[in-house]
Amino acid sequence: MTKRKIINDPVYDGFLSVDDPVILKVIEHPWFQRQRRIKQLGLTHLVYPGAMHTRFSHMLGALNLMGRALEVLRQKGVEISDEECRAAKLAILLHDLGHGPFSHTSERVLVDVPHEEITLLMMQRINKEMNGALDMAIAIFSNTYPKHFLHQLVSSQLDMDRLDYLGRDSFFTGVSEGIVGTDRIISMLNVHNDELVVDEKGIYSVEKFIISRRLMYWQVYMHKTVIAADQLLLNILRRARELNVSPFTFQLSPFNLDRFAEVDDDDIMVAVKHWQHSDDEILCTLCKNMVNRRLPAIRFSNEPFPETSPSYFEGTGQLRNRSYDFNDQEIKVLYKDGRCLPISEASDQLDRHFLEKQVTKYYYYYPKVEE
Amino acid sequence: MTKRKIINDPVYDGFLSVDDPVILKVIEHPWFQRQRRIKQLGLTHLVYPGAMHTRFSHMLGALNLMGRALEVLRQKGVEISDEECRAAKLAILLHDLGHGPFSHTSERVLVDVPHEEITLLMMQRINKEMNGALDMAIAIFSNTYPKHFLHQLVSSQLDMDRLDYLGRDSFFTGVSEGIVGTDRIISMLNVHNDELVVDEKGIYSVEKFIISRRLMYWQVYMHKTVIAADQLLLNILRRARELNVSPFTFQLSPFNLDRFAEVDDDDIMVAVKHWQHSDDEILCTLCKNMVNRRLPAIRFSNEPFPETSPSYFEGTGQLRNRSYDFNDQEIKVLYKDGRCLPISEASDQLDRHFLEKQVTKYYYYYPKVEE
Amino acid sequence: MTKRKIINDPVYDGFLSVDDPVILKVIEHPWFQRQRRIKQLGLTHLVYPGAMHTRFSHMLGALNLMGRALEVLRQKGVEISDEECRAAKLAILLHDLGHGPFSHTSERVLVDVPHEEITLLMMQRINKEMNGALDMAIAIFSNTYPKHFLHQLVSSQLDMDRLDYLGRDSFFTGVSEGIVGTDRIISMLNVHNDELVVDEKGIYSVEKFIISRRLMYWQVYMHKTVIAADQLLLNILRRARELNVSPFTFQLSPFNLDRFAEVDDDDIMVAVKHWQHSDDEILCTLCKNMVNRRLPAIRFSNEPFPETSPSYFEGTGQLRNRSYDFNDQEIKVLYKDGRCLPISEASDQLDRHFLEKQVTKYYYYYPKVEE
Amino acid sequence: MTKRKIINDPVYDGFLSVDDPVILKVIEHPWFQRQRRIKQLGLTHLVYPGAMHTRFSHMLGALNLMGRALEVLRQKGVEISDEECRAAKLAILLHDLGHGPFSHTSERVLVDVPHEEITLLMMQRINKEMNGALDMAIAIFSNTYPKHFLHQLVSSQLDMDRLDYLGRDSFFTGVSEGIVGTDRIISMLNVHNDELVVDEKGIYSVEKFIISRRLMYWQVYMHKTVIAADQLLLNILRRARELNVSPFTFQLSPFNLDRFAEVDDDDIMVAVKHWQHSDDEILCTLCKNMVNRRLPAIRFSNEPFPETSPSYFEGTGQLRNRSYDFNDQEIKVLYKDGRCLPISEASDQLDRHFLEKQVTKYYYYYPKVEE
Repeated sequence: MTKRKIINDPVYDGFLSVDDPVILKVIEHPWFQRQRRIKQLGLTHLVYPGAMHTRFSHMLGALNLMGRALEVLRQKGVEISDEECRAAKLAILLHDLGHGPFSHTSERVLVDVPHEEITLLMMQRINKEMNGALDMAIAIFSNTYPKHFLHQLVSSQLDMDRLDYLGRDSFFTGVSEGIVGTDRIISMLNVHNDELVVDEKGIYSVEKFIISRRLMYWQVYMHKTVIAADQLLLNILRRARELNVSPFTFQLSPFNLDRFAEVDDDDIMVAVKHWQHSDDEILCTLCKNMVNRRLPAIRFSNEPFPETSPSYFEGTGQLRNRSYDFNDQEIKVLYKDGRCLPISEASDQLDRHFLEKQVTKYYYYYPKVEE
Repeated sequence: MTKRKIINDPVYDGFLSVDDPVILKVIEHPWFQRQRRIKQLGLTHLVYPGAMHTRFSHMLGALNLMGRALEVLRQKGVEISDEECRAAKLAILLHDLGHGPFSHTSERVLVDVPHEEITLLMMQRINKEMNGALDMAIAIFSNTYPKHFLHQLVSSQLDMDRLDYLGRDSFFTGVSEGIVGTDRIISMLNVHNDELVVDEKGIYSVEKFIISRRLMYWQVYMHKTVIAADQLLLNILRRARELNVSPFTFQLSPFNLDRFAEVDDDDIMVAVKHWQHSDDEILCTLCKNMVNRRLPAIRFSNEPFPETSPSYFEGTGQLRNRSYDFNDQEIKVLYKDGRCLPISEASDQLDRHFLEKQVTKYYYYYPKVEE
Repeated sequence: MTKRKIINDPVYDGFLSVDDPVILKVIEHPWFQRQRRIKQLGLTHLVYPGAMHTRFSHMLGALNLMGRALEVLRQKGVEISDEECRAAKLAILLHDLGHGPFSHTSERVLVDVPHEEITLLMMQRINKEMNGALDMAIAIFSNTYPKHFLHQLVSSQLDMDRLDYLGRDSFFTGVSEGIVGTDRIISMLNVHNDELVVDEKGIYSVEKFIISRRLMYWQVYMHKTVIAADQLLLNILRRARELNVSPFTFQLSPFNLDRFAEVDDDDIMVAVKHWQHSDDEILCTLCKNMVNRRLPAIRFSNEPFPETSPSYFEGTGQLRNRSYDFNDQEIKVLYKDGRCLPISEASDQLDRHFLEKQVTKYYYYYPKVEE
Repeated sequence: MTKRKIINDPVYDGFLSVDDPVILKVIEHPWFQRQRRIKQLGLTHLVYPGAMHTRFSHMLGALNLMGRALEVLRQKGVEISDEECRAAKLAILLHDLGHGPFSHTSERVLVDVPHEEITLLMMQRINKEMNGALDMAIAIFSNTYPKHFLHQLVSSQLDMDRLDYLGRDSFFTGVSEGIVGTDRIISMLNVHNDELVVDEKGIYSVEKFIISRRLMYWQVYMHKTVIAADQLLLNILRRARELNVSPFTFQLSPFNLDRFAEVDDDDIMVAVKHWQHSDDEILCTLCKNMVNRRLPAIRFSNEPFPETSPSYFEGTGQLRNRSYDFNDQEIKVLYKDGRCLPISEASDQLDRHFLEKQVTKYYYYYPKVEE
């Protein structure tokens, strides 16, 4: 009798059903289970307290969407073998495997290998353990598999990763700006000349998707207070590294995969709590501020701030966002008459001017004056 | 200018606005902020991965509902002074303050003081720091304040605590069984002879609430796999205590309030990860099982299982639920004609037979055989 | 190229996709399109203004659920041919075809044939027009098809009809009591000895479903003010028949299928508006009351009211509800060990006492005194 | 004892509570109740079957939002008297009173007075009946009341009308593009120099609102098939007027207020059904097409189509949309430092180029060829 697992997920009306034994085995792998202890949005929960959701739930959510997308494409006559289906599912399931705790922050201090590379290393190791069961998945992930559109489902401007995280982050933060008609977009997917495209009727939904992502960027991902919190954590880790304090158990340079795989959000947070009692006044103060959520004040501006003398309590930085990337492959729209146009030409709303627009924000953070 | 804080909450359509400086100060207190690191449902996220929400978010959610309830009662002519409003809000805001990590489990091993008592101790300490600003809140919480109905809003069979956690747990697990017409119930609240009652029109909503709570009990709170996970953690903590292993930093007996206030979910999980490398094979095995989510098998039955010889891997236990407590004060319904009847008489659906029903389940857990 | 139609539906996350040409042809049939003009809940919108949804949307929603249910059953190894799938879908799609406007009211005055019979007559006629394309669907609908469980999907205590209308009526009224974990229930469906059953894990969801239906009964379907409005319309139609006023174009006795198929909600409402100008003071007053929503006062009681002298403005009646019917076939639960028990034995919560409970309410309506 | 009415509304979590006797009296007025029989989106339900919602529900929804907005403004220290509150509520409650059935279509054939004027006429008549109780409401509606911002809450680029209909139309169509953070926007409203403005923090929500409106425009309000259906109805009414057929009871020229107030959607639909049996083949065919939803084919283009010879079955037209109107007053953003900038300057995303963009679409409709 087939083993079948039902995984509950509040984002998609309750649950996801998995019965493929290879996929089940991957989900049970310790490196996959580790993602239960890594939050998808790092410190964002300090602003949006509901945003405690994990990379584990995101990776399963992306798997769910991949399943639906493959089904839609098959119904439209796109040829995808059962083996390719499984491989595409495995590729999306594992696409974020290499993330460590507070990735965007820790990559700048703790780890000197980008998370995409770590993902690939981990996939290769699991593949070995599973006697090559991930061969095709790795090919799709690395974009060496002939059917290019399978890679685009995993990584492109309209991939299952983005579709899931936009909806998921919106659900858990409560910011409705990110609600995207996911089902509708997926039902509009198609393949044309080995490229993932969107049927003509899906054009408005794609517009909504691009705009939602841009709004989520500033409303959530680049929220002032989140940036302030990230900056505080970054400074804590820098100071700890400088002091070489113990238990700095997550010092991961030179890079060691097995050591890396043992570290998660909890280790960082427990260390920060521990360092509240450090003899170093800077480290001790920074850590108390983090534990008790006394975050730096922060100001944003469209112009750069004057340089400040470097300090653990004050500094400047910059953020950049473009909702859509022309250097990357454009999202394409397939018309009933067979034409296939990039969204920048197909859309009446989102012309090149809008899509190209790149917003840069400069920020300056400094100690908050107690009122 | 008044400081005003907007707290985002996906459960109630986005956010909660707070501008009372005393309430804001309490929220900023380290002991309140600590609840950001304690999950509302302990290990339930091993079954419902979305259930990562914290006691912090629950306590703010209950504050939100209290604000609405007080407003409704005032509109219906119930006299509540501004000071009483603030005190009732503070009482519900702090009602769970004394919870430690994985309370239901850890209370059986780590702490020998019930969490209700700890809550009171903590409220008293903060009150001292704030020069008596919580006097009335503590009176309401302890049910010594003359207006009895204010205590009932904090703690009774239809309090703001239960209303929030049912809706919140339902939202984050994705189990629709717990969705309750919260707004509707609150709009039906009233006070009669100093007792919190429900207007006649709210009778169906109260029925729904009682039933939802019962269903959530078995579907979520007493879910088989959650019980198995709790049991595993309990056995880990017991073994660790027996071995007196280090870093058993959260050994909290004899009880010390300040030490207790430093411990949260992260400490437990990091210790469990650490003990995977213990020399003690039992502890090491149990911890590896927890970290990699290899939970014991478990069977439920309506009859007791035969006693097994005590072991860290196998054992029995029992669970009990009654959706409604006759020993506690009954929920009362106020009719237009002035009568006031307990729900067990007012309801056509939920008669005494149904409400009194108490379900006991026996369970037996044992090592899962690898397939 | 296959014609594919996307039908938008807010209840199930946006839309339903249909590409079976036979099903598409049936949807385009005038008798099916007529259901666009018949509200699912008659006059209920006078209490719940959102409840304007039509039988058309319900029938398509039930089709949607049937599609999902058949897919789940096939995945579990139940043998269902493509032809049987189509037939089961057609059967549920057409299951309400014979409803006229304000069925429950009009069946007591205008039409002397029950709507189930009319549905069958209409299906037979369409079948003729389509050269027997509905043969199997009619067999399933009439329960003469060998695979009994297909009929149960269309009509039983856990059929797609009930699942859709509970969720739909809940959505459009805004009464959360009816929210049912539809997806979850459907994913738990199974077939055992040619009977539709529910897998063990679905037991709580079935409990929720039975209770929700009961709560919706009193909160919506038997809402006092809805009963008062129904009574008013009933009296209008009775008076109009008595006077034999024109344009009583919807006089449908003796029964004529083609004439019947031309009448919908709009005809009734336009006639009522017209009769506001009648010379008959009773009819004129009743109609003005309806058009301007001046409904009779109504009182409910558990005891019968004393008989009143018959009048168009005052009278008594009774309502009855049992959430579950023991005379009908019980919902059955399939255990992993192969046992199959009726829900009344399987459920810890809903024992026979609860399920058998039948609530009868008596009502008395009378002219509202202007304040 | 105060009379209190609870009006159920699925859009805003269930319900709206009204206890102002003047507002209750206006709601009970026949001219207000008439809006129960006029659909908010005319024939849109032929594409989005859930879109049966009425102007009645929209007007109450806008009242709900107005209540919240006034409360927010008062909490921020804006002076608004109780009388002004009531008047602003009455103004928004009645803002759409003058709409007839299928307004946008019928205004081109049946009525030669724009609906805004009819609204004012109706408000004045009701005001007379209520002895001047609407004096201030009419002043606010007509923008003659000194506090200009009250008018802006009723009619401006960010009024309660638009906020309600976007959310409502999105809910009932199931098109998530229109979901707007209504609560959030309202909580950000403020008044600066007697002008309605948005606090700095609300800038992203306003961006979302402007974009959502634009997307809803093309996805719903200007949906191809809806335009085709409108065109069909327009041609039916034109032909009927040309033939002067009976019962053309809704011929409303010269304009007569009382006659106008008697006509609603039902009359139009019953007449169309009646005319299916007309001797005039054109009228008969057009009406059969409407009743059975056999709509014209339609093509959209960015370029004008060549003129066709006029016909009841074929023709051209054009549609225009700008999501934001620079001729109208701009939405303004209030910064913490006291600056107040128009959104076109305040927004990084929506610059003047985007906001000014006006999209014109040309269409050509023609008889659908039966497949």
